[in-house]
Amino acid sequence: MKFAEKITLCEVGLRDGLQNEKALLSVEDKLSLARAAIASGFPVMELGSFVSPKAVPQMADTDELYRRLGDVPGVELRALIANKRGVERAAACGCRKVKLNVSASRGHNLANLNKTPEESVAGFADCVKAARDAGIAVSGSISMPFGSPWERFTPVEDVRSIVDAYLAVGVEEISLSDASGMAVPTSVYSLFSNMAQAYPNVTWWFHSHNTRGTAMANIIAAMEAGITRMDCSFAGLGGCPFVPGAAGNIASEDVVHMLYEMGVETGIDLDACIATARLAAELTGHGGESYILRAGKSSDLIKK
Amino acid sequence: MKFAEKITLCEVGLRDGLQNEKALLSVEDKLSLARAAIASGFPVMELGSFVSPKAVPQMADTDELYRRLGDVPGVELRALIANKRGVERAAACGCRKVKLNVSASRGHNLANLNKTPEESVAGFADCVKAARDAGIAVSGSISMPFGSPWERFTPVEDVRSIVDAYLAVGVEEISLSDASGMAVPTSVYSLFSNMAQAYPNVTWWFHSHNTRGTAMANIIAAMEAGITRMDCSFAGLGGCPFVPGAAGNIASEDVVHMLYEMGVETGIDLDACIATARLAAELTGHGGESYILRAGKSSDLIKK
Repeated sequence: MKFAEKITLCEVGLRDGLQNEKALLSVEDKLSLARAAIASGFPVMELGSFVSPKAVPQMADTDELYRRLGDVPGVELRALIANKRGVERAAACGCRKVKLNVSASRGHNLANLNKTPEESVAGFADCVKAARDAGIAVSGSISMPFGSPWERFTPVEDVRSIVDAYLAVGVEEISLSDASGMAVPTSVYSLFSNMAQAYPNVTWWFHSHNTRGTAMANIIAAMEAGITRMDCSFAGLGGCPFVPGAAGNIASEDVVHMLYEMGVETGIDLDACIATARLAAELTGHGGESYILRAGKSSDLIKK
Repeated sequence: MKFAEKITLCEVGLRDGLQNEKALLSVEDKLSLARAAIASGFPVMELGSFVSPKAVPQMADTDELYRRLGDVPGVELRALIANKRGVERAAACGCRKVKLNVSASRGHNLANLNKTPEESVAGFADCVKAARDAGIAVSGSISMPFGSPWERFTPVEDVRSIVDAYLAVGVEEISLSDASGMAVPTSVYSLFSNMAQAYPNVTWWFHSHNTRGTAMANIIAAMEAGITRMDCSFAGLGGCPFVPGAAGNIASEDVVHMLYEMGVETGIDLDACIATARLAAELTGHGGESYILRAGKSSDLIKK
């Protein structure tokens, strides 16, 4: 059981966590959460998305959030975009890092967009150019490479072909996202081992959902495959797009606690991370997905 | 990432799950749960405990449960006991396998019983003899070898010394129990690797609690250390003796689902296992700890 001594965590609660909340949070509340997560030591955060405010009203104020937060030295503040309009909004509000996304499922992509995933990624070329021109870094995400409602198991060749398409448009930082919550440790280990070996120069991320209770085990499997960058969401906020009422992203404080107890460095202060999760739970009314918010830290048990 | 192709699971919901429930279940309801779990294919089950009915009223009818269920060919039905009185009750109702338990924590054992763990285990000699005389097999459990509220980390030498004490009284099947929910994958892997190497002839079990969200990752770590026998509890019933309101044992259906998706054989029918969990959730009113009861199987998502 071998893995890196240091793991880089990205707090995605402000994007993937809050976009599932029915009640809209104010920019003030989002600012409080962002500042708390930054103060706890997260080196990377996903602040929101520049997508249609009609489709995702929870993210409509992402521009304002960037403007009010401003640059934070040493912290990468990325946002999800879907097209060139997203790059324009990012440039206008001072966002310096964006993330594109494509479904690994051919069936999904063809049904929704009448394009193969590779055609979708090739179509990102203008986004990437516009972002580069504006001094904005671009990363990419591939959702459901471990399995999707359309294909029971995504062939590894399909994932490689999508990675090639990303590389062809100049995107060399790629996240594999278990949006459908179908990943298990063996599929995570197998796919990431394959990817890390085939593309050693790609900067890999793992975005896990705890839909079927396997996210922590999947994170360990990804670490064993050599992956050192993981997404997580305060208080375990989020959900599965295909399962109403399902559990969300893996809870940040649960991951930070586990890694702390394992002696793996994250650079994040555990108590401050738990305080952020508590704030997120208070603001949304949802904290039940977090084990640490319910049980406390292991060290809390120690008899004085 | 290597492990055995077949894992043996023990359903402990009727003991460790139900003993935490405030409302008492009837013997009829327990029989329904036991029969459902047996029908789903569990090869081992913990039916209850022969301990003081005043201390644990939920388990007071374990004798009656054994009598009404009778022998089930091919299924091992074990019960927890604390002393020789437990052996007598086991013998009287037809129970053929008992489990003893000791805390790995010196501080805990000295505070509660004024004995070291080794002295407690040596004191089990008369239980073991009485059980053997009655044709009853005996296994042993060591709780909190991964850490306890008394000792932050349990020294591996202490665990070895307790194992030696069990072997000295003739007990060669031993469970390591994370009752305090403090285990993480590295501590599980490290301790079980050490134990499996030092005691290759001991039949090892891992009993995991999901108190801090690490149970699934811990199970994978135990598997990687060569352990092939795991406890789990329908609907994730149970709790942490030190944390009121904490999550329970790892949910049987979540473990069976993960192992099924990993291609690891359990001999358990997944749908029947989920049906048992649903029944347990209905009878107790508690099903929220189960991811599969909330989200369904991965294969449920597949578009027809």
